[in-house]
Amino acid sequence: MKLATLRSESPDGQLVIVSRDLQRMAPADDLYPNLQSALDNWPVAEPQLRSRFDVLNAGATRAAEAFDAARAMAPLPRSYQWLDGSAFQSHGDLMSKVFGLDNPQTDRPLMYQGMSHEFLAGGADVALPAEEDGIDFEGEFAVITDHVPMAVSVAAAASHIRLVVQINDWSLRTLAPVEMKTGFGWVQAKPACSMAPIALTPDELGAAWDQGRVALPLHVWWNERKFGAANGSAMAFSFPQLVAHAAHTRRLCAGTIIGSGTVSNEHFRDIGSSCIAERRAIELLDNGAARTSYMRFGDTVRMQARAVDDSTPFGEIRQRVVALRADAASLKVG
Amino acid sequence: MKLATLRSESPDGQLVIVSRDLQRMAPADDLYPNLQSALDNWPVAEPQLRSRFDVLNAGATRAAEAFDAARAMAPLPRSYQWLDGSAFQSHGDLMSKVFGLDNPQTDRPLMYQGMSHEFLAGGADVALPAEEDGIDFEGEFAVITDHVPMAVSVAAAASHIRLVVQINDWSLRTLAPVEMKTGFGWVQAKPACSMAPIALTPDELGAAWDQGRVALPLHVWWNERKFGAANGSAMAFSFPQLVAHAAHTRRLCAGTIIGSGTVSNEHFRDIGSSCIAERRAIELLDNGAARTSYMRFGDTVRMQARAVDDSTPFGEIRQRVVALRADAASLKVG
Repeated sequence: MKLATLRSESPDGQLVIVSRDLQRMAPADDLYPNLQSALDNWPVAEPQLRSRFDVLNAGATRAAEAFDAARAMAPLPRSYQWLDGSAFQSHGDLMSKVFGLDNPQTDRPLMYQGMSHEFLAGGADVALPAEEDGIDFEGEFAVITDHVPMAVSVAAAASHIRLVVQINDWSLRTLAPVEMKTGFGWVQAKPACSMAPIALTPDELGAAWDQGRVALPLHVWWNERKFGAANGSAMAFSFPQLVAHAAHTRRLCAGTIIGSGTVSNEHFRDIGSSCIAERRAIELLDNGAARTSYMRFGDTVRMQARAVDDSTPFGEIRQRVVALRADAASLKVG
Repeated sequence: MKLATLRSESPDGQLVIVSRDLQRMAPADDLYPNLQSALDNWPVAEPQLRSRFDVLNAGATRAAEAFDAARAMAPLPRSYQWLDGSAFQSHGDLMSKVFGLDNPQTDRPLMYQGMSHEFLAGGADVALPAEEDGIDFEGEFAVITDHVPMAVSVAAAASHIRLVVQINDWSLRTLAPVEMKTGFGWVQAKPACSMAPIALTPDELGAAWDQGRVALPLHVWWNERKFGAANGSAMAFSFPQLVAHAAHTRRLCAGTIIGSGTVSNEHFRDIGSSCIAERRAIELLDNGAARTSYMRFGDTVRMQARAVDDSTPFGEIRQRVVALRADAASLKVG
C-alpha cells in the first residue's frame, strides 16, 4: 500500500492513497484525516486503507484523480519523534576522517534524536541562513512505527514497522563537529529534514525489503550531475534492531520515524556517495585535501530509490537550497 | 496566569486555569481544548485566558472547583520538541568529573534534543526496566515558546517565552557516558521527563523572573531526606539565549520546551544538588570514591521551587520509581 499527504488547511495535511504506479490517487481523509491518525489506529486502519488501495489499483475508484507530487507534503509533515541512526559503517568511517574525530568505538547502534516538528516536502525549497554553515544533503531510508512498548525485543520490533520512507537529512557540516565534540549531539547542525512523497508498507518493496533493510540503490544527483547510487542493503544494523535500540528505555509513540543514517557502501569510489561530506573524505584520503565545496544557494539535489523494474517506489526528492529571507523565517502552517 | 492539564480521554488532556494560590481551578477547554491549542493561538488565547484567571482569583467564578493535583497530567503531556540545555557551569564541571569525560570546551550553550512525545505527570510513578541503568533524577526549570522564527535574535527570543515550568529530567547514568562518547547525544539514557502540575506566565514569578532566569531555590528531597536547594539564578546562559541558540537554523513550533539543565550552584557543598550524580562527583572529589548509589525501585523524589513567601508556584513533583512490568510497557493514552 502507498500513501501520501496533500497540502491542506491542517499542518498535518490530508491523507490520500496512491496507486502502485504513482499515477492516480484516491481520498482517504473520510477514513482518517491524516497519516498520524491512521498510525494511531493502525490495526484497524491498515485493512480499511488497503482495501481502498486494491480498488484504486484495479482502476475501479470513481473518486480517483491524477496524483500530482507537486501537491504533496511530506507523508508525515510533523511527528512527535525522529530518531536517526547511523547504520552504514563506511559512512561512519569517512565522517570520522573528514571531521578529524575518533570513530566512535561501539558495538551498539549510533542514534540521535532530531527535529521532528517539521518535515519538508520532497519538492520544497530549503531556506537556510548561511552557505558558510556547510550545507549538505544526506540520502537515507527510514521506517515509521506504530505504538512500540518499552524494552521491546528485536523480533517484536519488526512487527511495529508499518511504513517505509525516503529522507533527505539536511546537515550543516561547519556546525556538526563543534556540536558533536560536546557529546550532546546535534541541534544547530540538523535543520528540518525532507521526505519523498510516498510512504509505503514494507510488502510493496517485495524482495527488496530484505532482512529489515531496503535493498535498493538510492540514486543521487547534485545540480543534475550523478553523485551516487549506494545501496540500502549494507546497514550494519537492521531497522528492527534500530527500533529495539530506540525503545530500550522509552515507549515509542505511533508515528515515530527511525532513520538508517546516510546510505553508504564500502565500494564508495565506484558507487559514489549520498552526501558531499563523504566525497570530501575520499578526496582527503586520495589527495590529502578536500576539494569539493558544500552547496551554494541555488544548488539542487535529486534523490530517488530505484526498484529492479526502474520504478521509483517513493517518488522523488528534488530540492533547491535558497537563502533564508526574513519573511520566510516563520513557521508556515499548512 | 497559571494553567494546568487534567487527565481526559485525549492524550493532550483538558486545559484548566488554576488560581494563584493553587486552591481552585476553572475550566478553559471551552476556549482551547488543551494547552497546545492555546499555544498555537497564543496572541489571541493569552488575553482570553488571563481574563478568566483574573475572575477566578477574584473568587467570582461560578464554575470553579477545588484544584486537585492528583488529577493533573504534565501541563504539556506531549510536545513536538524538547531541547534541553546544560546552562549551570558547576553541574557541567561535576558531571565531567564523575563520568571521567573531558569538560566540553565551548563558549556556546550545550543543548540536546530529547524525547518529547510523553511528559509524565508530576505525581506519576516512573516505570523503568533496570536499577542497573543508574536511575537518577534531575531538577530543572524550562520555558515553553510559541512560534519562533529561524535565526531569531536573543532580544526577540525573549518575547516568545510564554510559560515557565518545573521539570524532572530522568536520567540513566550507566548508559549516559556510553552514549555521550559517541557524540550523538542521549537516547537510551534519557527516558520520559516529568513536569510539575502548573505552567505559569513569567510575570507570575515577579522579581524571581530575573534576567531571563528563574531566581528561586529548587528544593529536592530523596526518600524524604533533604538533598538540595540550588537556585535557578546561576544559569551561565539565560533562557532567551537558549531559545535563540535552538532557533539558529530551525523554526521552533509552538509548544517547544527549552530546558535549563540540572539546577546547580557553585557552593554545592553547602546547598546540595538537584541530582545524585553531582553528589557522587563531590564524594569523588572529597574522598576519592563515590559512595552514594543511584535510586532503587521504591525510592521517591520530591521537588518544589519555593518563592520568598514559601509558596510553590509550580506545585510539586513527587514521584516513585518502580520496576517496568510487561503490562505497563505500552504507551497509555490519556
